[in-house]
Amino acid sequence: MKAEIITIGDELLIGQIINTNQAFIAEKLNTVGIYVEHMTTVGDKQEIIIESFHSALSHSDVVCVTGGLGPTHDDITKDAVCKFFSTDLEMNQPALEHITELMKNRGIPLSETSKNQALVPKGSIVIPNTAGSAPGFMFERNEKYFFVMPGVPFEMQEMVTRWVLPFFSKKNTGIVVRHKTLKTTGIAESLLAQKIGSVEEIIGTDGTTTLAFLPNQMGTKLRLTVIEKNIERAEEKLSNAEARIRSKVNSYIFSSDERDLEDIIGELFREQKLTLALAESCTGGFIAHRITNVPGSSEYFMRGFVVYSNQAKVEELNVPLETIVKHGAVSKEVAMAMAEGARKISHTTHALSITGIAGPSGGTPEKPVGTAWLGYSDTDTTFALKFNFGEHRIRFKERASQAALELLRRKLLKISSQ
Amino acid sequence: MKAEIITIGDELLIGQIINTNQAFIAEKLNTVGIYVEHMTTVGDKQEIIIESFHSALSHSDVVCVTGGLGPTHDDITKDAVCKFFSTDLEMNQPALEHITELMKNRGIPLSETSKNQALVPKGSIVIPNTAGSAPGFMFERNEKYFFVMPGVPFEMQEMVTRWVLPFFSKKNTGIVVRHKTLKTTGIAESLLAQKIGSVEEIIGTDGTTTLAFLPNQMGTKLRLTVIEKNIERAEEKLSNAEARIRSKVNSYIFSSDERDLEDIIGELFREQKLTLALAESCTGGFIAHRITNVPGSSEYFMRGFVVYSNQAKVEELNVPLETIVKHGAVSKEVAMAMAEGARKISHTTHALSITGIAGPSGGTPEKPVGTAWLGYSDTDTTFALKFNFGEHRIRFKERASQAALELLRRKLLKISSQ
Repeated sequence: MKAEIITIGDELLIGQIINTNQAFIAEKLNTVGIYVEHMTTVGDKQEIIIESFHSALSHSDVVCVTGGLGPTHDDITKDAVCKFFSTDLEMNQPALEHITELMKNRGIPLSETSKNQALVPKGSIVIPNTAGSAPGFMFERNEKYFFVMPGVPFEMQEMVTRWVLPFFSKKNTGIVVRHKTLKTTGIAESLLAQKIGSVEEIIGTDGTTTLAFLPNQMGTKLRLTVIEKNIERAEEKLSNAEARIRSKVNSYIFSSDERDLEDIIGELFREQKLTLALAESCTGGFIAHRITNVPGSSEYFMRGFVVYSNQAKVEELNVPLETIVKHGAVSKEVAMAMAEGARKISHTTHALSITGIAGPSGGTPEKPVGTAWLGYSDTDTTFALKFNFGEHRIRFKERASQAALELLRRKLLKISSQ
Repeated sequence: MKAEIITIGDELLIGQIINTNQAFIAEKLNTVGIYVEHMTTVGDKQEIIIESFHSALSHSDVVCVTGGLGPTHDDITKDAVCKFFSTDLEMNQPALEHITELMKNRGIPLSETSKNQALVPKGSIVIPNTAGSAPGFMFERNEKYFFVMPGVPFEMQEMVTRWVLPFFSKKNTGIVVRHKTLKTTGIAESLLAQKIGSVEEIIGTDGTTTLAFLPNQMGTKLRLTVIEKNIERAEEKLSNAEARIRSKVNSYIFSSDERDLEDIIGELFREQKLTLALAESCTGGFIAHRITNVPGSSEYFMRGFVVYSNQAKVEELNVPLETIVKHGAVSKEVAMAMAEGARKISHTTHALSITGIAGPSGGTPEKPVGTAWLGYSDTDTTFALKFNFGEHRIRFKERASQAALELLRRKLLKISSQ
């Protein structure tokens, strides 16, 4: 079955809030075999809302509408629905009792406006609101399903989870949609595509499987989607396609279960009973921040140094002043001294360091903005690698942190860094 | 002028990523008097994409399309555009040179796939990509404007800011929309609303001005919007409304020009010629990360310590082990010793410290998850304040960093912290 999601609200059209409802509903509908083909956002204008209803029902079997069910003057969705289905509002007794109870519990007097939230279109099936006041409702017409839910994310989410999904699970839609995302880093999207080669060889030609390349500054995600008649066949096709991708670019894939690189690193450090220290200059604590986003990271992450000044590099990490004077703060030698210093001072098995020019100023012809040296030290070896992470300060930090964590992953898994 | 935004990508339709491009574009178009009436999302299917182009141009004067300009097989937007405008692709020389240069700087061989990103539809005007490889482009037909930009948010954002907005600023749309956002922190939304009192007294009753409360974990933004016939009147109404809000809650407002707290702190440190050190436990480097997001922060930020282990607190910051044993690592005494230690060791005028329980585990009945002590030290005084930043690890870090920076702001501006 095909679906369209319609989100209603002026606040969306002026960019005041980011629309998270669409993604939530789409993902959930996928799990019961319903594929979203259109998403539409319109404002609080009756004519345009009704036009969007017509358009959606002409394309799709399932329409999910959110927004505009609240108690204030700009909430006009219910009137538009009544006009569209040629019906009127009527008081829904269970919804009214629910609202009365809710207001009582919150110690708020029951106003006429609150009561009106319990009005629903005649001929609809009511969807209880277990997380708020305004009920949702559904129309079923000629095997098409039209849902209307509040725009408040957690109220809508409860309705989808407790009511809409079970409703479709009982029906057999006859199709199953399954996704898998392989996260890669350390390789440009175009080079990754080249190494993977023929997409047809990966996903076949029967049209059930698709492969998407999703690049950003952290790397490129490879998303596989299978649409099949049953779960077993879908899972089998997913794992076959994954295996074929892995046979070409396995070493670049750090995760196939939505986890981030810091989670993977954390698991490796825990499993191998290793400990980590960080010495950051240009990334300013961002690598430590990512490492410590993982619950339980205090087991393996001992300490971090943000050594912005040269004096800090000398005093905290025992980087020889001569090394800085001779090679410059952004150099292979300083990166290595920082990594080794951090490891020894912190009594850890491993340390990473980074020194570079995050910009926007501070570059020279030999060391342009974006230049960075990433240092690595363990009990056997200390070395540093040169990178250019670009000229945008925040993305520099993001790219640098990703390269740093990927270097750790490769070392701990004994994968060559070439 | 009315606009429609079309975002293209299967990743949006399966709910894998949340669509932030729509809100960004809508907000920016508003600033040049263009009102978004529809937003549409479709997948990587040519027929549906072309249908959405037809529909959008029938409703709107301005159409902004994002997504599907990348180098891989699933990027089909350009072909759809060519079909829609009955044209072909041609190589754009400046874009090709830009991509060649980019790949060279990154040390990546120039593949055929990369080169193809420089192909643009004949008859379009090219929009340079200053943050990535694939160029955008624009068609102008019968006083309607059709923009196509990449889906990668920062690439699209640069194009909108540097190219699309200046393009429309030069035209006169007859109405002016102006926004101003006053950022507050350290006060709950409901208390802020109570202190501000009657909204009508702030914005008047002629309907030209609106005030929205936008709360999140960093504080509450107060957004003023004025729709007027000319810039002078719009600016006057904005500043009158701002003055009335400031007369009620001025001390909580840290910014009225979109800058973040770390920018404000940076300015204060530079102006007052002060220097800063940080000693972080539970925030794991996040405060240092925020401070160093500001270009030029190396002028005043000297060093940061991420002291996750007790040993690190003792060895790096000279926190007496007895203090940790007696009061626990999460205590007023340890926070104060950390701040004073960091300041003295770093030879700075100021230091902040934080020690707490970011969760999800590690709490006790007396010190539940979320508890934190924030320490402050300057050459005159050292003290610590107790907070609870909640049980969600990432939001804990965000709230804690905001409280830390707000404490600095109030001290440097000599505003009472009560």
